[in-house]
Amino acid sequence: MVSWKRKLKMGMVGGGQGAFIGWVHRMAAALDQQIEMTAGCFSRDYENTKITGEQLYLDHRRCYRTYEEMAEKEAKLPEGEKIDFVSVVTPNKSHFPIAKTFLEGGFHVVCDKPMTYTLDEAKELVQIVEKTGLVFCLTHNYTGHPLVRHARKQFAEGEFVTVRKVIVEYLQEFLAVPHEKLGMKQAIWRTDPAQSGIGGTMGDVGTHCVNLLEYITQDPIAELCADKSTFLPDRLLDEDVNALLRFKGGGKGVLAISQVAPGEENGLKIRIYGSKGAIVWAHENPNYMEVYKIGEPRTTITRASGYLSDVAAAATRIPQGHPEGYLEAFATIYNGVTEAVRAYIDGEPLNTGEYNFPTVHDGLRGMQFIYSTAESCDKGSVWVKM
Amino acid sequence: MVSWKRKLKMGMVGGGQGAFIGWVHRMAAALDQQIEMTAGCFSRDYENTKITGEQLYLDHRRCYRTYEEMAEKEAKLPEGEKIDFVSVVTPNKSHFPIAKTFLEGGFHVVCDKPMTYTLDEAKELVQIVEKTGLVFCLTHNYTGHPLVRHARKQFAEGEFVTVRKVIVEYLQEFLAVPHEKLGMKQAIWRTDPAQSGIGGTMGDVGTHCVNLLEYITQDPIAELCADKSTFLPDRLLDEDVNALLRFKGGGKGVLAISQVAPGEENGLKIRIYGSKGAIVWAHENPNYMEVYKIGEPRTTITRASGYLSDVAAAATRIPQGHPEGYLEAFATIYNGVTEAVRAYIDGEPLNTGEYNFPTVHDGLRGMQFIYSTAESCDKGSVWVKM
Amino acid sequence: MVSWKRKLKMGMVGGGQGAFIGWVHRMAAALDQQIEMTAGCFSRDYENTKITGEQLYLDHRRCYRTYEEMAEKEAKLPEGEKIDFVSVVTPNKSHFPIAKTFLEGGFHVVCDKPMTYTLDEAKELVQIVEKTGLVFCLTHNYTGHPLVRHARKQFAEGEFVTVRKVIVEYLQEFLAVPHEKLGMKQAIWRTDPAQSGIGGTMGDVGTHCVNLLEYITQDPIAELCADKSTFLPDRLLDEDVNALLRFKGGGKGVLAISQVAPGEENGLKIRIYGSKGAIVWAHENPNYMEVYKIGEPRTTITRASGYLSDVAAAATRIPQGHPEGYLEAFATIYNGVTEAVRAYIDGEPLNTGEYNFPTVHDGLRGMQFIYSTAESCDKGSVWVKM
Amino acid sequence: MVSWKRKLKMGMVGGGQGAFIGWVHRMAAALDQQIEMTAGCFSRDYENTKITGEQLYLDHRRCYRTYEEMAEKEAKLPEGEKIDFVSVVTPNKSHFPIAKTFLEGGFHVVCDKPMTYTLDEAKELVQIVEKTGLVFCLTHNYTGHPLVRHARKQFAEGEFVTVRKVIVEYLQEFLAVPHEKLGMKQAIWRTDPAQSGIGGTMGDVGTHCVNLLEYITQDPIAELCADKSTFLPDRLLDEDVNALLRFKGGGKGVLAISQVAPGEENGLKIRIYGSKGAIVWAHENPNYMEVYKIGEPRTTITRASGYLSDVAAAATRIPQGHPEGYLEAFATIYNGVTEAVRAYIDGEPLNTGEYNFPTVHDGLRGMQFIYSTAESCDKGSVWVKM
Repeated sequence: MVSWKRKLKMGMVGGGQGAFIGWVHRMAAALDQQIEMTAGCFSRDYENTKITGEQLYLDHRRCYRTYEEMAEKEAKLPEGEKIDFVSVVTPNKSHFPIAKTFLEGGFHVVCDKPMTYTLDEAKELVQIVEKTGLVFCLTHNYTGHPLVRHARKQFAEGEFVTVRKVIVEYLQEFLAVPHEKLGMKQAIWRTDPAQSGIGGTMGDVGTHCVNLLEYITQDPIAELCADKSTFLPDRLLDEDVNALLRFKGGGKGVLAISQVAPGEENGLKIRIYGSKGAIVWAHENPNYMEVYKIGEPRTTITRASGYLSDVAAAATRIPQGHPEGYLEAFATIYNGVTEAVRAYIDGEPLNTGEYNFPTVHDGLRGMQFIYSTAESCDKGSVWVKM
Repeated sequence: MVSWKRKLKMGMVGGGQGAFIGWVHRMAAALDQQIEMTAGCFSRDYENTKITGEQLYLDHRRCYRTYEEMAEKEAKLPEGEKIDFVSVVTPNKSHFPIAKTFLEGGFHVVCDKPMTYTLDEAKELVQIVEKTGLVFCLTHNYTGHPLVRHARKQFAEGEFVTVRKVIVEYLQEFLAVPHEKLGMKQAIWRTDPAQSGIGGTMGDVGTHCVNLLEYITQDPIAELCADKSTFLPDRLLDEDVNALLRFKGGGKGVLAISQVAPGEENGLKIRIYGSKGAIVWAHENPNYMEVYKIGEPRTTITRASGYLSDVAAAATRIPQGHPEGYLEAFATIYNGVTEAVRAYIDGEPLNTGEYNFPTVHDGLRGMQFIYSTAESCDKGSVWVKM
Repeated sequence: MVSWKRKLKMGMVGGGQGAFIGWVHRMAAALDQQIEMTAGCFSRDYENTKITGEQLYLDHRRCYRTYEEMAEKEAKLPEGEKIDFVSVVTPNKSHFPIAKTFLEGGFHVVCDKPMTYTLDEAKELVQIVEKTGLVFCLTHNYTGHPLVRHARKQFAEGEFVTVRKVIVEYLQEFLAVPHEKLGMKQAIWRTDPAQSGIGGTMGDVGTHCVNLLEYITQDPIAELCADKSTFLPDRLLDEDVNALLRFKGGGKGVLAISQVAPGEENGLKIRIYGSKGAIVWAHENPNYMEVYKIGEPRTTITRASGYLSDVAAAATRIPQGHPEGYLEAFATIYNGVTEAVRAYIDGEPLNTGEYNFPTVHDGLRGMQFIYSTAESCDKGSVWVKM
Repeated sequence: MVSWKRKLKMGMVGGGQGAFIGWVHRMAAALDQQIEMTAGCFSRDYENTKITGEQLYLDHRRCYRTYEEMAEKEAKLPEGEKIDFVSVVTPNKSHFPIAKTFLEGGFHVVCDKPMTYTLDEAKELVQIVEKTGLVFCLTHNYTGHPLVRHARKQFAEGEFVTVRKVIVEYLQEFLAVPHEKLGMKQAIWRTDPAQSGIGGTMGDVGTHCVNLLEYITQDPIAELCADKSTFLPDRLLDEDVNALLRFKGGGKGVLAISQVAPGEENGLKIRIYGSKGAIVWAHENPNYMEVYKIGEPRTTITRASGYLSDVAAAATRIPQGHPEGYLEAFATIYNGVTEAVRAYIDGEPLNTGEYNFPTVHDGLRGMQFIYSTAESCDKGSVWVKM
């Protein structure tokens, strides 16, 4: 760890009382003590923003009524005092205008996934990010796990040669109950196309699957054939999707996601079979990864072990056997952002040799997945390019 | 256990030196001591048949040069001396002619899966079985596991209400190495369309998946969309298949099978999510089944526990915690056959109220799966009825 | 597999209606089709013996009123017609007189564990077996598992060098309920010192632990310090024992056994840590064994894999991933007996180079464990030699 | 979450460059954003302290040459500016003098375990804490896990009635390699009695076991019989201990700990069998706990589930299925401290109704365990009171 001259200052849009993901971002950003929470517009309800600001010990002048006001006023503060970047943790609908506003105001942006409300917004956002040259990070947090990073390196180095079969799944029970009718905030916006966009489950958990598998293998999905379902009455968006995948490199795969699977919590699991070996990794027990080679005993590699690669070591905090989890991986994404923002401030070139956090291009890829999946389903579950 | 007047006499076609599944059938049939191995034509090579017969302590007069000779000569022996039934454990190609010959000779038949070489043969076999009224069992052995039988009962009784999502998989490493070029008998015929038929993996492991899921849920596959692959050079049949499934009852599913998945042994696993709960069962650790209900702690039910249903109890031999496995489940299928054959001999009606072994109709269903899958793939992975 | 001239003929004492272990022995003996059940005295109740004999399709003349009659009359039958060996599956109390009677009648003996009712009987039995030169097998069935045999070989070959720590446990719920008051036969005799001897749990499951660990490591327990407990009212024997162990080779261990542990079924698990590596094996999932080496990824070896030793291969029947269980391991013990009896009949020297089944010396060792444990507890849980 | 007027200010003694546990404390304290790192004496080497202070963005005037200087100077700063509490993360030898100095300077103290170098120091520290009335927390972090807190509540409410058997283990590979000869700081002081005290493994991991089990059951160890071992040459302290335990409530137990167990990482696992049910919890996968009841299906309860108790909910941050780990549990201990310190500052009575962090009495208990264990071993592994 190399010390820098000061902590970075973070602002947040969204994440007020009643939200879940705002706290996740704040805890993740705090963990490594390189970032201080400085300003926010936590809710469209200013009372909520004020209360949240108090809980976070913020200067009340840095708690804003609107994100536009926040972007404008923060921009006028001197360097080192104003926020360095903003985290956008609102429902999908507002990601684009908020991100755009802050990017155009000269701020780096961390944004929740899926990146935007529409595919067109995603394409426009790519252009804005490229034009501004600012740091943009999409929090596909699962790529922050040390063993996931190790797996990517193993695939990049040809350890398993060609990808032949991928089975990726993300199963939740979450929406098997009509929580949106019972007042649960997270369920209300997720089941509402006006806030979520055209994808329900495919956006909420499907994009994580796509990002994770393409991150590890670097072998993109070339085409897919999907079948979506909505089981509960009055629901407008997909609750469950199955899809066949074909990869650019010639391999095949299945994707099985659901938010109506009783007993499942956050069952993200990926299995990748190459021509020489395979890996199995599950988010719910992320400190272990099974690694197989043909004809050899199965091995289980463990986070923080001495035999792992440097990229795994760089993403780990505590010794093997002391479990790290969701927040640590999330914090590792934030660390990538911290490094990039500091490089930007110092006028150094951004590290482009290795991927330390998901970018706007990953975000576009996620939106393409949602649109391709929806298109496939709408045409009767046929094959479409992605 | 009710005693009967004598052990049943079993013949076998196939299963000579070098075969694997012949021994499985013989061990399974022997386990409960209701069946005695009596006659056989174990190979097209008579030397092999004689050696195998000696190893089984058979009367050399009951070791035959051809199955036709066997059927003919056994038919002439007196009741109680001649075989009661024959087990057919040859490659797929010869299942139909052998089964037909013995059925027409008045013998009950146990047959390995997939049932026949072609779909037309399967349809004809259904008619033959129905016409003769004899017992015909197809050894989809996984339906012999006590917890699988319990699951079927739970679904039948509405415990989980409607099936919404099924994930069924069967993954093997077996053919990731070109064993057929290295002389392995099991690989040679399985990779040869002239012996296996139009399906490779889809016949060898895919039919087990279909049988298992339809057995448990009694909610048949209505249509499917499949994508098959062949990765190793010179292979003519599918090594890997992914498919989307739609069930008659409105649920959806994915099927993912492979015989080129490094590290996998006999990874048959099924997960069925209903509207009120779910089950997870894996063949490699068959004494446990996870049962989930919405909002409740996950439970693991264990074979031979007192809280299980009568159908589970009827299929179990030893106390909980003492693992049963593959052979025991296979033996339970043979027990179903034993009961049915004895009922036939005693002139009692066959128990049609409960399914104690897979029948010719299950066999036809498996062949329909192979043909539907192949058709879907041949047309570019489109949806076809099944 | 080499063929022999005929199947061996097996008799049984005990194992009538209502018993459990009799069926286990009969199924295990039948599995490999080298043994035929021929005669029995299944109960002190002749009606039970007759019914059991009928269920087993025995000649009613081979169903005897007393074991003494059985030994006497069988001895007079011609070789090849009379039984070759007898399996003794009665409560502990009668093991010795029955075994003695048959051995002195010239029959080989398979006997359930613990070997005898008293330590003195065990010592006498060793002398009888040695004097007669007959085959005597004690069914410590867990040593029949392929991976257990492989582990023994690994330790013998110095793979893990010195044993430093052993944790062996066998946990059951079985007696947490006063089943003996509810009429359960297995509980009645096990909780009755007049039938079981001085050890309850220590004899029933503790002897298995000791046999398993000494089998694998070949490093015997040198001394122990034990603490036994009886929790349920009116119980006279130990239900639970903890013990500290010291091995001849300088290592240490703990043994934790219980028959009043809620939720546990047949939780026999052994962990052995040597100076260079370790193994972990559990009976409830016996097809897997974890193998650790310092600083290396954990490995899981699987039954029937190509990389295993010849001793593991010799004890396996079906391919990897198709689970074998309790009965298969038991059958492997019977196979060892079959080989030894045939060698005896053929006048060949018994294979003494490798241990294919537990012998009378293992049985004596088990009785020493019971007596040492009881002595330690009786003296206030002090250290005693074993 | 209730907001307070300001973040608490934390100082640290120890935790400089090269240390591991200092970062753990700092990350844990930062997670919930109620504490700010303010001052430190991170090393006896002032250069190290300065570098560490820079990395933590501390005011260089708050980086001290000695802890005595730190206590003295901080005490003179105004309330709200000076540190509220200090975390002591040095080797055992200096815990007592440092804690004493800060307590007598009016500061609350968080201290690593084992609490002191000698038992006498522990007893004196109890008196100091009681006299000052200040908050003292010992970081037995495993009691911060939500499911551990839930288990304590279940036992308190009689869910499993009487404790009958406990199996507690903590297994590491850590010292199977002579890391102290290879320069590893953590190994050097841990294997040096001059820095660690009379206990090696028994202090480092054994005290965690004792704290965890007494925390959950509230049924203290009454006596124990221990057997310690040292296997590597030149080692002076125990590397491995086995012990028999007897509880005040009449139950029994075994403790098996090792730091020379190949393949083990931080294998802390506890199994507690009561007369009506049991729990199994393992630190390496802390989001799951198995709960058993006699005769019922096994259940697995999961962190953050709706059916858990309020104490579990209070200790959880993120939804079920998103794994929490070591740092989160550690942070929960810090939250208990935060609450207590704030109550102290506000002049409110300390919450004594529930145990939110381990206290000086737990620390004394741990030292008693070390001394009792050592006494038992020194006398030849006999029973001693604890």
